Amino acid sequence: MSERTKSPVTVLGLGRMGTPIADAFLAAGHPVTVWNRTAAKAGPLVARGAAGAATAAEAVTAGPLVIAPLLDHEAVREALGPATAELRGRTLVNLANSSPDQARELAAWAAGHGADYLDGAMMALPQTVATPSGFFLYSGSQDAFTTYRPELEVMAPAHYFGTDPGAAEIHDLAVLGTGYAALAGFLHAAALLDTVGTPPEVLAPLAARWLGGMADFLPELAREAGSGSYSDGVSTIDLNRAAVGSLVGLSRTHGVATDVHDPLKALLDRRAADGHGQDSFSSVFELLRTRNPSKG
Amino acid sequence: MSERTKSPVTVLGLGRMGTPIADAFLAAGHPVTVWNRTAAKAGPLVARGAAGAATAAEAVTAGPLVIAPLLDHEAVREALGPATAELRGRTLVNLANSSPDQARELAAWAAGHGADYLDGAMMALPQTVATPSGFFLYSGSQDAFTTYRPELEVMAPAHYFGTDPGAAEIHDLAVLGTGYAALAGFLHAAALLDTVGTPPEVLAPLAARWLGGMADFLPELAREAGSGSYSDGVSTIDLNRAAVGSLVGLSRTHGVATDVHDPLKALLDRRAADGHGQDSFSSVFELLRTRNPSKG
Ligand SMILES: NC(=O)c1ccc[n+]([C@@H]2O[C@H](COP(=O)([O-])OP(=O)(O)OC[C@H]3O[C@@H](n4cnc5c(N)ncnc54)[C@H](OP(=O)(O)O)[C@@H]3O)[C@@H](O)[C@H]2O)c1
Ligand SMILES: NC(=O)c1ccc[n+]([C@@H]2O[C@H](COP(=O)([O-])OP(=O)(O)OC[C@H]3O[C@@H](n4cnc5c(N)ncnc54)[C@H](OP(=O)(O)O)[C@@H]3O)[C@@H](O)[C@H]2O)c1
Repeated sequence: MSERTKSPVTVLGLGRMGTPIADAFLAAGHPVTVWNRTAAKAGPLVARGAAGAATAAEAVTAGPLVIAPLLDHEAVREALGPATAELRGRTLVNLANSSPDQARELAAWAAGHGADYLDGAMMALPQTVATPSGFFLYSGSQDAFTTYRPELEVMAPAHYFGTDPGAAEIHDLAVLGTGYAALAGFLHAAALLDTVGTPPEVLAPLAARWLGGMADFLPELAREAGSGSYSDGVSTIDLNRAAVGSLVGLSRTHGVATDVHDPLKALLDRRAADGHGQDSFSSVFELLRTRNPSKG
Repeated sequence: MSERTKSPVTVLGLGRMGTPIADAFLAAGHPVTVWNRTAAKAGPLVARGAAGAATAAEAVTAGPLVIAPLLDHEAVREALGPATAELRGRTLVNLANSSPDQARELAAWAAGHGADYLDGAMMALPQTVATPSGFFLYSGSQDAFTTYRPELEVMAPAHYFGTDPGAAEIHDLAVLGTGYAALAGFLHAAALLDTVGTPPEVLAPLAARWLGGMADFLPELAREAGSGSYSDGVSTIDLNRAAVGSLVGLSRTHGVATDVHDPLKALLDRRAADGHGQDSFSSVFELLRTRNPSKG
């Protein structure tokens, strides 16, 4: 019975993310109370040892920590609307994908009902919950993060970004953006190789391995961008401008859209024109920091 | 002495890449003959067991396989100009970064001198030669690739893309492009987080882990793009269009340049406008395959 000394956890919303999250708490030995709008989805979890609650309000009363991996902002408001009295004195962890402003609004709403609030962004897929590949970003109540960090780490490594409840969502979008750019780059590469008869499936493992190498390279880029000192690198603006120029030129020759790489080409051209050709590639950062007024 | 049964290898050019390449052949037990324009650079390798040649022509005569990790096309022409007679009957592996047309020109030049030709593109850094993270792409003589594959694999896993000598360089640029896009995405993310006081060094490990997840996702994207069937995915155009839209909108609010993500946003908008909002994200491929005539 020693595992029963772990603190109780409530999970509201048993969708693709909520289900593995509830399972992770069960596996870690926490008493878990679950609720889902469509009650049938709670059945398998109850069979695996969770307590099923008939209403969100009932689920909330089961313990001090309420974790809500619901669909969106609206779903959180709808699910918790009838449970405002029960929330008092507890901590709400909102894991729904929201805008920074929605997160701030919900934090204020929770405060109005006497509840502590953490906004969370899940950098994970259902299958990477509670594995080393997933990680969650948090912001909001510093107290809540410190108090419940052990519980949060059951779901994924937990990173905290300060008291602005919107910060987790801002960091989420930033990290997502790195991934989106990579995927766009991959689809461009697939389009280019399509013109010479190489199928995307052949490209995928090579591009994946190369992306792994680029991931290893990010700390160096970050050091340069963070310090603003761009004179040490071997990978210069001129060198990479030539390579990106070749890529864009070749794509054009092969009749492939260059949309994905045109901006980086233009940014490298601007750095070179401004006399920074021998600076590190990472110095493109300086152009991204401020919106180009000429572009409206 | 059993290692001396391995075939002799000549390495021309002992720069950042040539040196670890020559070392890899030594470590694998091949007799290695080296030459470098600036002779002093050969000293350490000779001390480690390589035979030093006084001229490129002399180095070429040491064996059937000549590997040239030289600076560029011009360097290859200059280094091998005085060795054309000696090249006859041997195989030249050109590892210099070239354009596809330069590779084709050099293949024709080699054929004119009775030499077999392989063009190679090194997807590696000096420190990843002969490690699992590096890989080399080849095209040109199929015979040469088959015959010397064991030797080529000493440097890195070897991938062959057909008899067009330019193909390796085309594949190189395509794979590089995936990486460039990811780096641009990272620098944008760093610029966005800079506005909320999060330094690039904090972002780097998170973005790196996320890129790792995206790399795992490429085979699925490739399957969809390769088959042209986009109706199975859970990650739809609409869903990702909303996320990229949020990212662009937030960047704008924070006064950060949106250059990096504007094209993907526009591509997703076009897919949605064309009635493909419920197709998979990967269907953006269809827009990249053909150059948008309206964009000139
Ligand atoms: N799936 C992923 O790979 C992934 C990855 C990272 C982040 N996310 C984010 O995680 C959140 C959850 O995603 P998911 O994939 O788990 O979604 P999902 O599978 O669609 O589950 C949505 C959950 O929200 C509930 N819900 C929806 N509207 C509701 C309402 N008005 N009132 C009460 N409950 C409501 C659903 O209940 P019913 O069963 O009654 O419909 C269900 O439990 C989303 O914000 C998503 O963006 C998802
Ligand atoms: N370094 C990397 O991370 C990397 C990664 C992938 C691919 N590559 C590509 O690999 C190739 C070699 O790069 P590297 O970094 O090893 O370059 P490097 O360190 O600058 O070495 C260049 C080599 O080429 C020789 N060379 C230059 N011009 C010559 C000429 N006219 N005649 C004879 N020899 C000449 C140099 O000889 P001297 O010593 O006499 O100058 C040196 O041996 C390049 O095409 C590069 O783009 C490099």
